[in-house]
Amino acid sequence: MSKPLVFPALEQFVAATNGRNMTRAAYVAVTSGVALMILLTVDPAYEAAHHWVDALLWACLAFFVFEWVVRLRHAFAAQRTWAYALSIRGFVDAIAAAAVPVAMVLGTHPKTAWLLGVFWMLKVVPGIPGLRQLRRVLVLESGPLLSVLVIFLMVLFLASVAVYYLERDAQPVAFGSVPAALWWAVATLTTTGYGDVVPITPLGRLVAAVVMICGLGVFGLWTGILATGFAAETRRDNFLKTWESVSKVPFFAALGPAAIADVTHMLRTMDLPARTTIIRKGQTGDCMYFIAAGEVEVDLPGKKVPLGEGAFFGEMALLGNNLRSASITTTRVSKLLVLDLVDFRMLMARHPDLAQTIDAEAKRRAQENN
Amino acid sequence: MSKPLVFPALEQFVAATNGRNMTRAAYVAVTSGVALMILLTVDPAYEAAHHWVDALLWACLAFFVFEWVVRLRHAFAAQRTWAYALSIRGFVDAIAAAAVPVAMVLGTHPKTAWLLGVFWMLKVVPGIPGLRQLRRVLVLESGPLLSVLVIFLMVLFLASVAVYYLERDAQPVAFGSVPAALWWAVATLTTTGYGDVVPITPLGRLVAAVVMICGLGVFGLWTGILATGFAAETRRDNFLKTWESVSKVPFFAALGPAAIADVTHMLRTMDLPARTTIIRKGQTGDCMYFIAAGEVEVDLPGKKVPLGEGAFFGEMALLGNNLRSASITTTRVSKLLVLDLVDFRMLMARHPDLAQTIDAEAKRRAQENN
Amino acid sequence: MSKPLVFPALEQFVAATNGRNMTRAAYVAVTSGVALMILLTVDPAYEAAHHWVDALLWACLAFFVFEWVVRLRHAFAAQRTWAYALSIRGFVDAIAAAAVPVAMVLGTHPKTAWLLGVFWMLKVVPGIPGLRQLRRVLVLESGPLLSVLVIFLMVLFLASVAVYYLERDAQPVAFGSVPAALWWAVATLTTTGYGDVVPITPLGRLVAAVVMICGLGVFGLWTGILATGFAAETRRDNFLKTWESVSKVPFFAALGPAAIADVTHMLRTMDLPARTTIIRKGQTGDCMYFIAAGEVEVDLPGKKVPLGEGAFFGEMALLGNNLRSASITTTRVSKLLVLDLVDFRMLMARHPDLAQTIDAEAKRRAQENN
Amino acid sequence: MSKPLVFPALEQFVAATNGRNMTRAAYVAVTSGVALMILLTVDPAYEAAHHWVDALLWACLAFFVFEWVVRLRHAFAAQRTWAYALSIRGFVDAIAAAAVPVAMVLGTHPKTAWLLGVFWMLKVVPGIPGLRQLRRVLVLESGPLLSVLVIFLMVLFLASVAVYYLERDAQPVAFGSVPAALWWAVATLTTTGYGDVVPITPLGRLVAAVVMICGLGVFGLWTGILATGFAAETRRDNFLKTWESVSKVPFFAALGPAAIADVTHMLRTMDLPARTTIIRKGQTGDCMYFIAAGEVEVDLPGKKVPLGEGAFFGEMALLGNNLRSASITTTRVSKLLVLDLVDFRMLMARHPDLAQTIDAEAKRRAQENN
Repeated sequence: MSKPLVFPALEQFVAATNGRNMTRAAYVAVTSGVALMILLTVDPAYEAAHHWVDALLWACLAFFVFEWVVRLRHAFAAQRTWAYALSIRGFVDAIAAAAVPVAMVLGTHPKTAWLLGVFWMLKVVPGIPGLRQLRRVLVLESGPLLSVLVIFLMVLFLASVAVYYLERDAQPVAFGSVPAALWWAVATLTTTGYGDVVPITPLGRLVAAVVMICGLGVFGLWTGILATGFAAETRRDNFLKTWESVSKVPFFAALGPAAIADVTHMLRTMDLPARTTIIRKGQTGDCMYFIAAGEVEVDLPGKKVPLGEGAFFGEMALLGNNLRSASITTTRVSKLLVLDLVDFRMLMARHPDLAQTIDAEAKRRAQENN
Repeated sequence: MSKPLVFPALEQFVAATNGRNMTRAAYVAVTSGVALMILLTVDPAYEAAHHWVDALLWACLAFFVFEWVVRLRHAFAAQRTWAYALSIRGFVDAIAAAAVPVAMVLGTHPKTAWLLGVFWMLKVVPGIPGLRQLRRVLVLESGPLLSVLVIFLMVLFLASVAVYYLERDAQPVAFGSVPAALWWAVATLTTTGYGDVVPITPLGRLVAAVVMICGLGVFGLWTGILATGFAAETRRDNFLKTWESVSKVPFFAALGPAAIADVTHMLRTMDLPARTTIIRKGQTGDCMYFIAAGEVEVDLPGKKVPLGEGAFFGEMALLGNNLRSASITTTRVSKLLVLDLVDFRMLMARHPDLAQTIDAEAKRRAQENN
Repeated sequence: MSKPLVFPALEQFVAATNGRNMTRAAYVAVTSGVALMILLTVDPAYEAAHHWVDALLWACLAFFVFEWVVRLRHAFAAQRTWAYALSIRGFVDAIAAAAVPVAMVLGTHPKTAWLLGVFWMLKVVPGIPGLRQLRRVLVLESGPLLSVLVIFLMVLFLASVAVYYLERDAQPVAFGSVPAALWWAVATLTTTGYGDVVPITPLGRLVAAVVMICGLGVFGLWTGILATGFAAETRRDNFLKTWESVSKVPFFAALGPAAIADVTHMLRTMDLPARTTIIRKGQTGDCMYFIAAGEVEVDLPGKKVPLGEGAFFGEMALLGNNLRSASITTTRVSKLLVLDLVDFRMLMARHPDLAQTIDAEAKRRAQENN
Repeated sequence: MSKPLVFPALEQFVAATNGRNMTRAAYVAVTSGVALMILLTVDPAYEAAHHWVDALLWACLAFFVFEWVVRLRHAFAAQRTWAYALSIRGFVDAIAAAAVPVAMVLGTHPKTAWLLGVFWMLKVVPGIPGLRQLRRVLVLESGPLLSVLVIFLMVLFLASVAVYYLERDAQPVAFGSVPAALWWAVATLTTTGYGDVVPITPLGRLVAAVVMICGLGVFGLWTGILATGFAAETRRDNFLKTWESVSKVPFFAALGPAAIADVTHMLRTMDLPARTTIIRKGQTGDCMYFIAAGEVEVDLPGKKVPLGEGAFFGEMALLGNNLRSASITTTRVSKLLVLDLVDFRMLMARHPDLAQTIDAEAKRRAQENN
């Protein structure tokens, strides 16, 4: 895409990372970098091997700087410099590359500056699979979550002032000010309970007991809200992933759009690399598969039958005996739609024409095999 | 509304707070008042700046008293004095204004009296957005929640007596009475676990282990009940907020009431201030919008097309390629109905006539743009 | 029912408690009995007032014995002695009456014997409203709950042995045996974390970290299972309570059974004593009411209109403006069916004939009021 | 099946364990083995009875070795040696039999070697009833669960480095390195809160407070995800268990497949041993039963009426008065389908023909009994 890049090796490197955030090399660099940064703080270990630790830390840092520069150049060549620099990915790359050197330049002690290497971990964030889903739940449920947070803070402050008032004479050190009481309150309301500061007067303990029970309540509310959000989000996510594939399978395309929406809720998408065994002969089966993309191979005695896009398999275990009658393996990267036994029965019941098609195919195959 | 008020400035102030509980000034006063009250208890900080702290605390208090008096006068003028004084809002205002002065008049040491400033926080309560929803859940689920509370108390008392009996000889100080054992039990059953009082006899530890596991169970029950309540309440809340808007959009009004109820469950309301960008060109889109109130502007190359109430936009990203083809911005305060991709497909499947209308409009727009 | 009882006063007492487990007197006796039992263990308090405490404890005990004897006699007279004696209620009454005296007779020190008074609390158990619901959830979900318990125990034992092995040399006292390590493990896995026994070797701490994270997982599983169970049970419970009432209201009886089942899911039962105000004029309304049993009175200007069984009210706030136009009060014990605004709209959409009836009635009333 | 086995007694033993993982003897061996292993580490107890403890431990070990050898031989005879050896069951048997002897042969001190006896517990794993269900939830929800785990780890590391930086000067021993700070962070983020290491600087405490609140959040997310997963899985599990039975009951077989799927969601399977009383005369009833397999006996005055497969009972309590009119007991191992009162009404409403059949039968029975 971008001709004027200087180093061909870099160009290849960038091409390899295109579309994904982390190469395998980056994962190694992040993991070992953070591990070394931790090792640096363990005095005996660091004294024993400080040459190695320092060298490897510099190597990790060099890798992150290098990666950032290459990506910046590439973005510049594609005239998206600012789009990249301001994206989460660009921001995280910049922090990983610049935090430690900037701290050193500003005169921080090297051992302290290396601590900023913990930010290298952030490079993993854009690659977390379920993160988008988590974020949507947090955004959609932000109203009730904020309400619970406000309640949490209110209990926190009221309890702190009450316990400060009740305990300050008995324990002038531990409860000598409201901030000190706040420290106790937050450890109690979250049910952490360090026990370094504990009320000793009867009334102080009564307040503490109420705070603990409120802690349970806050927990419960928080969880209840998130559970509700997740239930909705999980269904939505699956629907979105599956819809595209379903409408491409000719078997379902004949159904009207209402039925496709119905079917989509029943299916689950499965992405498989090549040479993966999906079904093993003799196993018990509780689902059937539709091929949305790719190809699989049925391992019949004496021959191998390929099945292409739009075909289905595994239905025999759902119709009669529930043992798989042949092993089936992908021949290339494939996308399958999985139909669970429960949903299979629902589907057959609601769409008798589909049931007939599957039945006929199952019979044809059974005859062929004998 | 009420002519005979004395200070015109006050009248304006009251008018500004009308319908809302908290002005921006009130938020500032609450936050800084509570912060100063906390500072007051930190001896070194207070000694260093006690003139400032005292002055600002008195200023905050003056603000709350002033606000209360103005509201009372206003309510009196509107002949709703008692309605206001007895409402939650009136009660909270009264506490915020009167608690500290009353304590001082009763001879409490000033530093202690200011602690009552923590009640200023309560002024925030009526403004918490999700509070009504929380309260409904707690009311509707009060039956099972109370049952769990009774079980909680029963386990608490039985465990206290058992551990008191088992530990009183081994630890005469820590477990010298049932109230002392209750303190241990509540810290254990809520899984707080301070560790200041811990059973040491084998049987005492066995009882403690059972109590801890019961703690998990109580947690689980509590949360389970609240989660169930929230799931129902969230759906209800959304339905109520959306229904009014939906029936006003001509696009949906043609459908029968049954279909409107159906559609309402799929839509989400979004309130936006003026000059907010809803869609940015080139982004991937996963929802479309209906304008329930207000106006938006489509930023096409060379011209700006306004869309008024009842219009819809964003449907092209759902029908074909999923990149937004133009930026869209509100021109005034607007209320939009958001239809998610998943629900869009469901809707199109169930109401083919709507699908046709949207399709036709999308085609017309696509032609126009080329 | 039973003539041969000796004391007429007793007979009246039993008749009063018939069908309910606890009279108001019993609640007082249980509460004060347990409170006194706790007071007994607080040495300074007991020394100051031991005559009073002893006297009142004996009085409570006498009450429970008396109650038990009366119930036994009554059951005997009704030829259900064994049915009563073996029921939960009979069992709990027996324990409350006999535990303390039996302990004293067996030679236990009186102060210790009175501790058994904590069992008096159990008398409250049969009266807990949501207990049946809780029990059903626990029974129906017992499979997964037991699985989680087994996993819990397995993690507990594996972690104990591992930490015992790793820490026994470093801390021979705290981790000197597997039972000692079990004590640590249970406090950690339930996330109680007393901190009285804590691993100090690096490997021991690693195991501890894994145990804590497993603790979170066990919590999550437990709660997830209970939340699922509760969602189902709450719907069932409401349906059962509401069904009977619905089919008795003529308004709904005209619908077929399928529609009644549908309607039942939308309604909520509300039991009210006499002279309770249900609706206050000028409030905002978000539900309407059907009278399943009892009578209410509409407080119109200048007259009071009674509404009997089968009538409905509150529909005007749902149809037009949402302010209540008149106050409504029960005249005797009544059972109302509440229809929420959301469900009202669903119902009107699905059953247009009901919508028409309600509309007509609302118009008639509006005209009448003007 | 396998003739060439040497010891006939062994063969019988294997036949007895066929299909199940644990005989009753194995449960006894596991329980007592683990208990003895624990006793071994309690010095006073072991010294008092070390001959007995040693002898019994060797006996348990002998049992596990014996069981493993027999199963291996049997698998060999059936030509499934590897299938068995590589299955979870085979793996667990091998560990239980070999771990302790191998450790002893390698020269470990016997008291330490016996600690490996804790692995005997694993033999219970394949027999846990709800484990398959738990595993499916964990697999299907692995995406979001992993995301939460990554977030958990990220908070953990960031907090450790921050607190290490803030506290290392104030507490050089407790926070002397990042691993030491990690130990604090994991105890705090899981809300365990040992309290052995606690931040004391104001900023360190602020970070700690944020970590505790994040701990609540992680808890909530985790639980929310698992709750969602369980709700789906429980419904699926019940459907699968019930479907087979439903389609065999002639009463339902007449319905089309769509209706059968519908009915299956309403029923619950119940497996009962012989001579179990299902219904007791005079109890209140809230469900009816269909016999999917086995036989029951109705205990009418003066005669006993058997009911075979396909029959139903208990419907009278649902139709009229809700007291059971006769006791009913299984005569052999039976599988019943339970129809709850709520679902009964739904079913009657949706399938009027079924309602008629049940009604007719109930009337016939009522006449017969009179």
